[in-house]
Amino acid sequence: MTILLLFLALASAPQTQPADDIRALLTTQSEAWNRGDLTGFLAPYQHSEELTFFSGDTVTRGYAAIEARYRTRYGNSRETMGQLRFEDLEVTLLAPDAAVVYGRFRLQMKDSSPTGIFTLILRKQSGKWMIVHDHTSTS
Amino acid sequence: MTILLLFLALASAPQTQPADDIRALLTTQSEAWNRGDLTGFLAPYQHSEELTFFSGDTVTRGYAAIEARYRTRYGNSRETMGQLRFEDLEVTLLAPDAAVVYGRFRLQMKDSSPTGIFTLILRKQSGKWMIVHDHTSTS
Repeated sequence: MTILLLFLALASAPQTQPADDIRALLTTQSEAWNRGDLTGFLAPYQHSEELTFFSGDTVTRGYAAIEARYRTRYGNSRETMGQLRFEDLEVTLLAPDAAVVYGRFRLQMKDSSPTGIFTLILRKQSGKWMIVHDHTSTS
Repeated sequence: MTILLLFLALASAPQTQPADDIRALLTTQSEAWNRGDLTGFLAPYQHSEELTFFSGDTVTRGYAAIEARYRTRYGNSRETMGQLRFEDLEVTLLAPDAAVVYGRFRLQMKDSSPTGIFTLILRKQSGKWMIVHDHTSTS
């Protein structure tokens, strides 16, 4: 019985902790941003109509609209996108397939350095964590 | 076998849907606000140091600090708090004990009518849904 329980415990142990996977996802995102790769930055956003992006008082729905919003605002090159850094990240697992991330972004542009805070909701879909909701706000 | 399955289905059926419970919680909150009862409005916020409130660029932590922020800003009477309405509510259950709510608030004050959008994270604790995180932003 003890050996069976041990076997089950080992068999169900994840290769990495979900929080590590999610932190890695965010690191990959900021690396993509910092080489001017908007498509790479947006890769972990759920490619669906259900994706929601809340910013200030504005609700944007669907991957296509959200990508267009980013592209208009930040372009698709190192020069226009600037350098992004995430800080104060807190990852909380709500369920094996659901997590929330709190954090702060700092963007270093040529003439400004915007910052703000965010709440991300992620779901694990087909074994991959995807962002399904992003609420970002600034002062 | 069919009867057994039916029995199991009935036995596991919740008294109400979690989304209904959460909508009722929000209705109770706005009713409390609209009679000038700040304590009642704040009742479903988790009374702990872990509670987080994101607004604009500001992170506030802990129930006491969040209550003080509300009290300073809105007072504790019908006259100073105005009339609150929630709109566009979307409740998503992430797990049996975790949910996220998207929505908009509209506040009718004497001289202004602020509005904004919010993301709430709720956890079910000892059988009751409590707000553990509130991210609110305005234009």
